[in-house]
Amino acid sequence: MSSQFQPRNPDYKARVSSSFDAQTVMQLIGASLGEVEPGRVEIRLPYRQDLVQQDGFLHAGISSTIMDSACGYAAFSLMPAEARVLTIEFKINLLAPAAGASFVAVGKVRKSGRTVFVSESELYADSDGEDKLVATMVGTLMALYPK
Amino acid sequence: MSSQFQPRNPDYKARVSSSFDAQTVMQLIGASLGEVEPGRVEIRLPYRQDLVQQDGFLHAGISSTIMDSACGYAAFSLMPAEARVLTIEFKINLLAPAAGASFVAVGKVRKSGRTVFVSESELYADSDGEDKLVATMVGTLMALYPK
Amino acid sequence: MSSQFQPRNPDYKARVSSSFDAQTVMQLIGASLGEVEPGRVEIRLPYRQDLVQQDGFLHAGISSTIMDSACGYAAFSLMPAEARVLTIEFKINLLAPAAGASFVAVGKVRKSGRTVFVSESELYADSDGEDKLVATMVGTLMALYPK
Amino acid sequence: MSSQFQPRNPDYKARVSSSFDAQTVMQLIGASLGEVEPGRVEIRLPYRQDLVQQDGFLHAGISSTIMDSACGYAAFSLMPAEARVLTIEFKINLLAPAAGASFVAVGKVRKSGRTVFVSESELYADSDGEDKLVATMVGTLMALYPK
Repeated sequence: MSSQFQPRNPDYKARVSSSFDAQTVMQLIGASLGEVEPGRVEIRLPYRQDLVQQDGFLHAGISSTIMDSACGYAAFSLMPAEARVLTIEFKINLLAPAAGASFVAVGKVRKSGRTVFVSESELYADSDGEDKLVATMVGTLMALYPK
Repeated sequence: MSSQFQPRNPDYKARVSSSFDAQTVMQLIGASLGEVEPGRVEIRLPYRQDLVQQDGFLHAGISSTIMDSACGYAAFSLMPAEARVLTIEFKINLLAPAAGASFVAVGKVRKSGRTVFVSESELYADSDGEDKLVATMVGTLMALYPK
Repeated sequence: MSSQFQPRNPDYKARVSSSFDAQTVMQLIGASLGEVEPGRVEIRLPYRQDLVQQDGFLHAGISSTIMDSACGYAAFSLMPAEARVLTIEFKINLLAPAAGASFVAVGKVRKSGRTVFVSESELYADSDGEDKLVATMVGTLMALYPK
Repeated sequence: MSSQFQPRNPDYKARVSSSFDAQTVMQLIGASLGEVEPGRVEIRLPYRQDLVQQDGFLHAGISSTIMDSACGYAAFSLMPAEARVLTIEFKINLLAPAAGASFVAVGKVRKSGRTVFVSESELYADSDGEDKLVATMVGTLMALYPK
C-alpha cells in the first residue's frame, strides 16, 4: 500500500519492531505486530478468555493497549532516528461490544510535525470472517529529542 | 469517608465486587479492588515487569484498564439493582511516566443521571512511599436497563 | 453524493435547516448551513476579525461551535421525527492554525444507534483556494425521545 | 486565594490581561476576564439570546470558547515571559443544560512542564443565585519559545 508520508529514518520498520518487542505487555496479552508502513501500523490480538470485562467482551483497557501502541508506532515510524516517542493523551470511543475471535488495531498518522503528532486508530473485530469496527481512538504523541 | 451520593442499591459493595471478580483481565494483570463507597472506587495494581511499554513504565493501556474500571464501578455503585454498566468513551491524560512500586486508580462520579454518568479517575504511583499523580481520566458511562 | 445511511425521517433536510436557524449563535458569528445529506452535514463560516484569539487565528471555541453543530446535525439527520438531539461530550484536536479566508466544518456519523450516536467532524480552511485540514473532532450525541 | 504554583513571570497578570484583550471574540460574545492567579483564571459571560443553540441553552461552542481560554490563560500565567501559549487539544463533557443568567469558567493547571501543560476548567451557571456545575473540560497546551 502506498503512503502519503516519507519516513525520515530508512530503518523505520526495524525500529518499530524492536521497540514493540520491548513492550512486555504485548507478550502478556498475546498481541503481535502486523503491517508496518510509513505512518501506518497494525497490531493484532487473538481473543482470550483472560482479557475480558464482566460481560465477556475484550476490556476497553486492553483495546486501548493495542490501539495506543498502534497510534504511537504509526507516529514513531515517521520520526527521525534520534527521537523517542511518548503518548501524552488519547480518547477512545467504544462503538460496539468488542466481541470476536480476533482483533486488529490500525493506527494512522493525521498530523506529522517535528514535535507533535496526532494519530488515529480503529479497532476491528473479526466475527465470523467479517471485520466489524468496534472502537475508534485519537491520540497526541510527542517526539522527544536528545538534548 | 462520607460521600455526597446515596446508593440506589443497598448491596452496591457486593455487586461491584462480584462484577470486578468477573473481569478476568484483572487477575491477569494482578489488580485488586480497593475501597468501595457510593460514587467512589479504588483499584490497586502492583508494578510488574510484564506490564510495561518500551521504556519500562506501566503501559498507558494498563493504566487505562484500571482507571476505566475505577470510573465504571464508581458509576455502577450508584445504579439501581436492575441496571448494567457500559463505558461509551473515555479520555486519558498522561501527566508523568507511570513509574513506581505500585499504583492506585481512584474513580469518582461527577454526574449521576438515570442513564448517563460521567466519572473521573486519577492514577497515583507509589514511589518511595510518596503518592505521585501520573494520569487523569474522564469517562462517560451508561446504565442499561432490562426492556 | 451517495450515503451509507438511510434517514428515518424523510423530512430530515427541513428539520436540520429549521433547527439550525434556531441556533442564534450561528447568525452572530456569520455561519451558514451547507450540504445536508443523511449522516453528513456541512457548516460554512467566512473569516471575520471579531472571531479570533490573540494571534489572529479563528478561536478554537468558534471552530468548536461549527464543528459541534456539524457533528450534531449529522446525527440529527438520521434520527426519527420525534427525537431531539443533545451533545454529551466532544474532543477537538487542533492540527494547524485556523488561518484562511473561510472555513467549512464537515460532520459525519460513525455510529448510529437508537439512543447513542458518534460523529466526527473535520475543519478545513480555504487558504488561497486550497483546502487545508486544521482541526478534527469526535463527539457523542444522544437522541432524546418524548416520554 | 493561595496557589500551589509560583509564576515564572512576575508580570503574569498584565500579560494574561493583555492577551485576553487581543481575543476579539471575547468582546463579540460579551465575556470578561475575572480573577487571575498563578495557575488559575476565571472568565465570566452573561447570558445573551444570541449565544444559544436550538433549545435556548448556551451553545457548547460558546461554553468551549470561555473554558478553552480559561484553561489556556491558567497555563499562560505560569509560563516564562518569552513563551507563547497554544492549545493543542481539549475535551468537554456537558453535564447539564447551560441555562442561567450568567456563567463563569474556572481554569486550573493540573500539570506544569517546560513545554506541555494540562489544564482543567469547570463551567458554572448562576441560576437563581446558585452556582451549578454544567460542564467540565480538560485540555493540553503548549508553551512555544522563540528559536
